[in-house]
Amino acid sequence: MAQVQRMSRLMVKTLRDDPADAETLSHKLLVRAGYVRRTSAGIWTWLPLGKKVLENVARVVREEMDAIGGQEVLLPALLPREPYDASGRWDEYGDLLFRVKDRKGADYLLGPTHEEIFTQIVKDQCSSYKDLPVILYQIQTKYRDEARPRSGVLRGREFQMKDSYSFDTTDEGLVESYGLHREAYQKIFARLGLDYRIVSAVSGAMGGSASEEFLAPAAAGEDTFVDCPACDYAANTEAVTFALTPVEGVEHGPVEELDTPDTPTIETLAEHLGVPASATLKNLLVKVDGEIVAVGVPGDREVDLGKLGEHLAPAVVELVTAEDFVGRADLVRGYVGPQGLDKVRYIADPRVAPGTAWITGANKADKHARNVVCGRDFEVDDYLDVVVVEEGDPCPACGTGLKMDRAIEIGHIFQLGRKYADTFQLDVLGQNGKPVRVTMGSYGIGVSRAVAALAEQSADSQGLCWPREVAPADVHVVAAGKALQTELALDVSEKLGAAGVRVLVDDRAGVSPGVKFTDSELIGVPQILVAGRRSAEGVLELKDRRTGEREELTVAEAIARLTA
Amino acid sequence: MAQVQRMSRLMVKTLRDDPADAETLSHKLLVRAGYVRRTSAGIWTWLPLGKKVLENVARVVREEMDAIGGQEVLLPALLPREPYDASGRWDEYGDLLFRVKDRKGADYLLGPTHEEIFTQIVKDQCSSYKDLPVILYQIQTKYRDEARPRSGVLRGREFQMKDSYSFDTTDEGLVESYGLHREAYQKIFARLGLDYRIVSAVSGAMGGSASEEFLAPAAAGEDTFVDCPACDYAANTEAVTFALTPVEGVEHGPVEELDTPDTPTIETLAEHLGVPASATLKNLLVKVDGEIVAVGVPGDREVDLGKLGEHLAPAVVELVTAEDFVGRADLVRGYVGPQGLDKVRYIADPRVAPGTAWITGANKADKHARNVVCGRDFEVDDYLDVVVVEEGDPCPACGTGLKMDRAIEIGHIFQLGRKYADTFQLDVLGQNGKPVRVTMGSYGIGVSRAVAALAEQSADSQGLCWPREVAPADVHVVAAGKALQTELALDVSEKLGAAGVRVLVDDRAGVSPGVKFTDSELIGVPQILVAGRRSAEGVLELKDRRTGEREELTVAEAIARLTA
Repeated sequence: MAQVQRMSRLMVKTLRDDPADAETLSHKLLVRAGYVRRTSAGIWTWLPLGKKVLENVARVVREEMDAIGGQEVLLPALLPREPYDASGRWDEYGDLLFRVKDRKGADYLLGPTHEEIFTQIVKDQCSSYKDLPVILYQIQTKYRDEARPRSGVLRGREFQMKDSYSFDTTDEGLVESYGLHREAYQKIFARLGLDYRIVSAVSGAMGGSASEEFLAPAAAGEDTFVDCPACDYAANTEAVTFALTPVEGVEHGPVEELDTPDTPTIETLAEHLGVPASATLKNLLVKVDGEIVAVGVPGDREVDLGKLGEHLAPAVVELVTAEDFVGRADLVRGYVGPQGLDKVRYIADPRVAPGTAWITGANKADKHARNVVCGRDFEVDDYLDVVVVEEGDPCPACGTGLKMDRAIEIGHIFQLGRKYADTFQLDVLGQNGKPVRVTMGSYGIGVSRAVAALAEQSADSQGLCWPREVAPADVHVVAAGKALQTELALDVSEKLGAAGVRVLVDDRAGVSPGVKFTDSELIGVPQILVAGRRSAEGVLELKDRRTGEREELTVAEAIARLTA
Repeated sequence: MAQVQRMSRLMVKTLRDDPADAETLSHKLLVRAGYVRRTSAGIWTWLPLGKKVLENVARVVREEMDAIGGQEVLLPALLPREPYDASGRWDEYGDLLFRVKDRKGADYLLGPTHEEIFTQIVKDQCSSYKDLPVILYQIQTKYRDEARPRSGVLRGREFQMKDSYSFDTTDEGLVESYGLHREAYQKIFARLGLDYRIVSAVSGAMGGSASEEFLAPAAAGEDTFVDCPACDYAANTEAVTFALTPVEGVEHGPVEELDTPDTPTIETLAEHLGVPASATLKNLLVKVDGEIVAVGVPGDREVDLGKLGEHLAPAVVELVTAEDFVGRADLVRGYVGPQGLDKVRYIADPRVAPGTAWITGANKADKHARNVVCGRDFEVDDYLDVVVVEEGDPCPACGTGLKMDRAIEIGHIFQLGRKYADTFQLDVLGQNGKPVRVTMGSYGIGVSRAVAALAEQSADSQGLCWPREVAPADVHVVAAGKALQTELALDVSEKLGAAGVRVLVDDRAGVSPGVKFTDSELIGVPQILVAGRRSAEGVLELKDRRTGEREELTVAEAIARLTA
């Protein structure tokens, strides 16, 4: 017997107008349809309808996590500082971390993710290879003090997340646990009715090896990703790679010095010489752990300092300042060229391939040089993908020009390796009687964010439109208004409820049929059953919320259809 | 198809010894049996078995809350300061409140209870009497920075609670909502298998009128309550009342002054005069909002300053200091008697009834007075129950001597009235078109605490012993060890699971039968099914965990019995 929710008693207040501060579709509609309510910046209350959707998403996640042998636990959100000091994340998280002092002045934090604590638990509970592999998960409240919390529940400061962690004794075991999660996530997002892509990702602050993100394409998304229109390649923009292809058999003339006064930028230089910016080589100087390093990219491309930082982590990357040039005659500010940088490590984009010729700084004030050839006039110490990816860049898989799209990150799977196991010395006794260091994976699904992503993807101009598995009800029964219609609506609702159908019935008195219809479109239950004109004959109208298709049915037919 | 949990894969590590810091039975056993693990002082992780029990308790609570029309919502735990400033609780909670600053320096708190926020939500969502009554609830994480977190999950600093709030337009409506909760709580605790009493309670820091507590008697309880062995009266010690019974027809002699040097205490006075302490009248001076007030109680009783404070709230009660006697010739320190206190308000315990005679201070140094009669020689301004209740005090209902017991508070129901509605001006449009101030109730169940209370009440010397509704499984199948036994155990487990029985099966290899039996007793699943000696014949032994009764059954019989 499923629940019949009567709107006359349900706390749901729909709004005709978008909230003033709402920018995204899901934010507007979830507020207008009475699913969520803002309590503070980035901190939300889930009202009765919203709580049902949130719970439905959590149920699907739970079922699929159980199916891969995941064991559900519940960790605290208020966590002691010490393990996060040990891992370095107490500091690394910076302002993103909510920090708390207790009455004795001891430091705590509100957990943004729980690698440290799970590692400690497994260290405490598992002592032998026989105790592994193990997959632990929780669906729990997480905290991140976002600088600009916005987009409603899409990016909150308090949010619901499923996080899980795998513990294995071998690398192969980790790959298997990762694979189990990957499949579980595919099932979860398919059941939720989300359109999604799996993209290669860089590791971010987590530090580790293989990592993929599950992205739900949506205009409101805060992530940009590249998508190949020709093959199935998709990737986080930070993870796109460009093949290093040496240019062979091309003869270049000798290096030639050019007078280039008043050309402080690539644009002015290209204009002065009448060449495209792509013919020039841009050399950015940075400090890596205090040492000056030059980074070369084609003049028409931008260096992605975030990507550079990721590549060089844990080394710290900073921009140079005027002071760094003091006593460095080899570094002529604005006129740096790699052919004169013997004492400086030179990192370059793969586009700066051996055999390519460039216009670049001549290492003299007001001078540039032409025909500076990579491999002949200078050497690249390290090739790294550090340029900002652009629409039309070649697909690493098939070479087709890439498309760029916006998406919501709804899941992330990640082979952490032994980073945390090393920190906490998590060993178990191996088969040979010797200690084995454990290897870990960490896997997340944004449960509250998935609700927003679903709202974004499934809404239309009338309002929300949920897939059945997550909808707050299976059918929205609308009593057009007259006593007879209300009677029929309640009768059919009762019968549907008894048959296991989850019913939301609009039995409100004193509300016009027009308002009720508008509300039913806004609330977005997938089937709408109206007790209207032909109620006296016992005939109802069933409307598909998505397609708008309508059909007249008797009570018995409606029940047969909705229980099918 | 219910889940079959294989212990070979389940993260559960039992301990032979009690944790060093554990004082209470539930703390010891929940840790030893692998249900919970301490993460920090008063902050706990729920391991797989514990999470199941916690979830079972939550499910029962949810079902019964839904049955009374409660609507489930989910509020944030991280709350803005402003509403708690408005109610005064930001300060009133003192050190009990975890306070947090965000990256911009704005003040937040970790919610200990959510009256303020629910009031704001209803103000936002409900505008007419037609929208009420409404009952909202959540099962959510709460925070209290206890000075001495202890007793495991019985009194944590982060804990799970069901809190609900009723909103009505009339006092009768509030009484009805309160009654619905009272009945729902009775059903919940009965289903959970908890032994409990409903006791009258004083309101504590909440401020309001009717209030009852649900107490689970247990040695580990931190609450003391009184229980009548003759009738069904039970009460919080602070709520016990004593009837005022004037004494009539007794003639007392005239007031007589006594020399009583060196009698600074009631004990020395009683000894000096050769009378019981109960014949003397103790007069405690306090300041109420700065004004000196005297409180009279029999010499053998103690004044409960907490109770006095509750009675006089919101006035502030303080003890007097030497400075308060300056310039007050009427107040002779150590020799105060009510017969000389014309300028001082006199509050007395009902035992100081009209017609009773006392030995009390003579308002002169080193002098006491005998035959000081209430109603003849002094008047009582207010009778208040302010003495500490003692074992043997008469039952207010039947007069029998009361017993005092320890208990765990597992629930609290409370008619808040209009306190918060006044603070936030929560009005709805009444039937007559005029605004009506809303009246509220607030109701709590300690969900994680109920797990501890169940452990306390149901455990025996062998370990935990759960009622079936909350147990982590319906049956614990033990494979004694040989291949044949494991095969039979897994086969019967599979069949039981398919029949909807929740199974925990101990299929661990290399663990002795003795250890498995001991673990099964410790873990406390109500039925234990052993594949042992007669496995070759397909015969198992079913043992009732509580009674220890054993019975041999075939596989078919075991399935029939366990699905009955």
